[in-house]
Amino acid sequence: MNTLHQSFNVHFTYDVFFSDRLFDPTNSTLVDFLKNRHSEGFRKKLLFILDEGVTTSHPDLLEQIKAYFAPVSSVDMVPDLIVIPGGEGSKNDPALVDQLIDAIDRYGIDRHSYVVAIGGGSVLDLVGYVAAISHRGIRHIRIPTTVLSQNDSGIGVKNGVNYRGKKNFLGSFAPPTAVFNDSEFLKTLDDRDWRAGISEAIKVALIKDQPFFEWLETNAEKLAARDLDAMQYLIHRCAELHLNHIASGDPFEMGSSRPLDFGHWSAHKLEQLTDFEIRHGEAVAIGIALDSLYSQRLGWLSEADTNRILNLERTLGFSLFHPALDGDGVLKGLNEFREHLGGQLTIMLLKAIGKGVEVHEMDTELIREVIGILKENEIQPA
Amino acid sequence: MNTLHQSFNVHFTYDVFFSDRLFDPTNSTLVDFLKNRHSEGFRKKLLFILDEGVTTSHPDLLEQIKAYFAPVSSVDMVPDLIVIPGGEGSKNDPALVDQLIDAIDRYGIDRHSYVVAIGGGSVLDLVGYVAAISHRGIRHIRIPTTVLSQNDSGIGVKNGVNYRGKKNFLGSFAPPTAVFNDSEFLKTLDDRDWRAGISEAIKVALIKDQPFFEWLETNAEKLAARDLDAMQYLIHRCAELHLNHIASGDPFEMGSSRPLDFGHWSAHKLEQLTDFEIRHGEAVAIGIALDSLYSQRLGWLSEADTNRILNLERTLGFSLFHPALDGDGVLKGLNEFREHLGGQLTIMLLKAIGKGVEVHEMDTELIREVIGILKENEIQPA
Ligand SMILES: NC(=O)c1ccc[n+]([C@@H]2O[C@H](COP(=O)([O-])OP(=O)(O)OC[C@H]3O[C@@H](n4cnc5c(N)ncnc54)[C@H](O)[C@@H]3O)[C@@H](O)[C@H]2O)c1
Ligand SMILES: NC(=O)c1ccc[n+]([C@@H]2O[C@H](COP(=O)([O-])OP(=O)(O)OC[C@H]3O[C@@H](n4cnc5c(N)ncnc54)[C@H](O)[C@@H]3O)[C@@H](O)[C@H]2O)c1
Ligand SMILES: [Zn+2]
Ligand SMILES: [Zn+2]
Repeated sequence: MNTLHQSFNVHFTYDVFFSDRLFDPTNSTLVDFLKNRHSEGFRKKLLFILDEGVTTSHPDLLEQIKAYFAPVSSVDMVPDLIVIPGGEGSKNDPALVDQLIDAIDRYGIDRHSYVVAIGGGSVLDLVGYVAAISHRGIRHIRIPTTVLSQNDSGIGVKNGVNYRGKKNFLGSFAPPTAVFNDSEFLKTLDDRDWRAGISEAIKVALIKDQPFFEWLETNAEKLAARDLDAMQYLIHRCAELHLNHIASGDPFEMGSSRPLDFGHWSAHKLEQLTDFEIRHGEAVAIGIALDSLYSQRLGWLSEADTNRILNLERTLGFSLFHPALDGDGVLKGLNEFREHLGGQLTIMLLKAIGKGVEVHEMDTELIREVIGILKENEIQPA
Repeated sequence: MNTLHQSFNVHFTYDVFFSDRLFDPTNSTLVDFLKNRHSEGFRKKLLFILDEGVTTSHPDLLEQIKAYFAPVSSVDMVPDLIVIPGGEGSKNDPALVDQLIDAIDRYGIDRHSYVVAIGGGSVLDLVGYVAAISHRGIRHIRIPTTVLSQNDSGIGVKNGVNYRGKKNFLGSFAPPTAVFNDSEFLKTLDDRDWRAGISEAIKVALIKDQPFFEWLETNAEKLAARDLDAMQYLIHRCAELHLNHIASGDPFEMGSSRPLDFGHWSAHKLEQLTDFEIRHGEAVAIGIALDSLYSQRLGWLSEADTNRILNLERTLGFSLFHPALDGDGVLKGLNEFREHLGGQLTIMLLKAIGKGVEVHEMDTELIREVIGILKENEIQPA
């Protein structure tokens, strides 16, 4: 009997809103969004799940949210707002997955309701995962509260949790229903988290957008001094570049190519080697330095441009070396990554600032040499 | 700052192959498929997960699979073939989810490898779920072994497991990489499972394809007598109708409409009320009878056509009543379904054989009346 062929497209769409003080009674961004989606005869519930790191720094937030929704009749907010621990630990704890699934069951959150997550990339990844697997996918709204989640993780299509320490072992591709970036949250970030998210902007500028790189150079001091206007511009542009990349490329990563993972092969291993003591963005800053220097050694990137990259990172306050780079741990990561890709590496390097190129091999000796240079510079900064 | 809009399509494609004795050394269907997907430099692993109900009825299967792949160098079969209990119970057991995730981790199955599931709809739903959440989605190949899974569940895009007895509470939409329907497996089904899957064909014929309904009438005796050729035609046509429906409609069910759930609102509740003692397809046969009679009482379906439907089901050996229909259990199901849809029902009924129409209300008294008729007929068949 003849073979049957199946073929179809699924369309995904969502908006990323920029605002501040989302839950101020005079700010109608969120409630307008919900009202526009209201349809007669349907009741939609709203279940809030919040990052404890956020509620601690914004002690009035829970009351503000309740007050904000009190007069809103088009949705039914679940009165019990759920607060869970933030940071990478939240992705390591299977009990939290159970707790959230249980809440979705208990409060009768279905495919017409919304789960709203407020937090850093870790909490968003966890909640996004739970929403994606409950009832084969519940609508979820993300309110990212860190630089990294506002310019990268929170506006993308991936979620995930760790499994026995294996990063993002469980997860899925599930676009959000909407994202609301509220700049007010950024004020309470500690300096490490403020800085860490900037490396994703450097990364995407380096592979795609030379003028944005130049903007970063021009504004590096401001950013280092926690200028909120500069940061808002950075986040908007970085989010835009990420969104365009997702839409024009391979959104659910069915192929092997991951251009946005420039600087990430070593970063992922560094995070693991340091037991996640180092932030993702801090590790990426080191990974960018490593792969830029490597590109230079290949004769691709000029020495001047390489130094611009390293200097930008230093001005922003990043360390470009970590003791975990000593030994062969990171090189093992390269092999694991190759295996993970089914035997063939695909790694992004730089031909110029704003121009990435993929390679399928990296030279172990050259990597060692580059690590040596980073170490030397660290001891005696250039 | 201005809102960013994200919008993209994801393309999904897969083939459904029809064959028999897939693992006969002379049958190259499966190995050809894998060879065509082979690419230089990549090693792909193959992890088999089998339904114990299948391996018990086909005691040589495991050895056949090993022998089949022994000479194949383009893939690396994991030598440890995993056998898990079949039937609905497999979807109720969270330990099985863990066991399979653990196997994926242990054997290093990544996004370039394949998980191959052989079994009934339950095992396929479980394995499909595990594959969908591991590494954000591993390629999975389905080899369905029941009528229902070959003509409906196994060729579609959904997976799922139960959570605290709640049917498919956890799951996702994840198209398979390919489906291989092997008619040989059908020979060992017990009569209930042989019959049960036929009701999905009646369902789809009733809402979409009058000639297919007539074919079912003509071939009902043969089907009841386990004629394999007739069953193969039925499966092929039913699978085709389901595939077309998925591709032309709303594959990931983002809206409220579920035309293919004709006869299913009461069926789902009946399964639950009987603690899954009744098969899904048996419950659907009753649900079809109920909604057909209801459509007749509305004056939509002629009495002659209604009787044709009930007679077809009887000829095939279906019972059209179950004691669990007594009492208000099923009516409660209607309310739960309404709630699940966010307050507004959408239910498919019949205007004619081959023509479904959606309604947003059902009359409780009329449902009671129809149940009364089914009960009376059962005691004293017409
Ligand atoms: N899904 C994706 O596509 C994607 C992409 C990149 C990174 N990620 C993931 O994102 C995670 C990192 O996210 P992150 O960098 O946002 O850090 P994080 O979520 O781990 O948060 C870091 C710390 O900041 C706290 N915090 C959050 N918001 C705060 C605020 N406004 N004020 C004060 N404290 C606050 C948190 O409680 C936590 O203690 C990693 O798990 C990484 O793998 C995911
Ligand atoms: N994903 C979907 O879109 C979808 C659609 C419809 C139904 N389903 C699900 O499918 C499940 C029902 O699947 P099913 O009807 O295939 O039954 P099943 O998978 O529960 O199997 C029934 C019994 O048959 C045994 N078996 C399987 N193949 C056999 C063979 N060839 N010979 C002998 N015994 C065999 C199994 O071990 C089991 O004991 C339900 O959980 C239902 O919810 C899913
Ligand atoms: Zn990153
Ligand atoms: Zn069904």
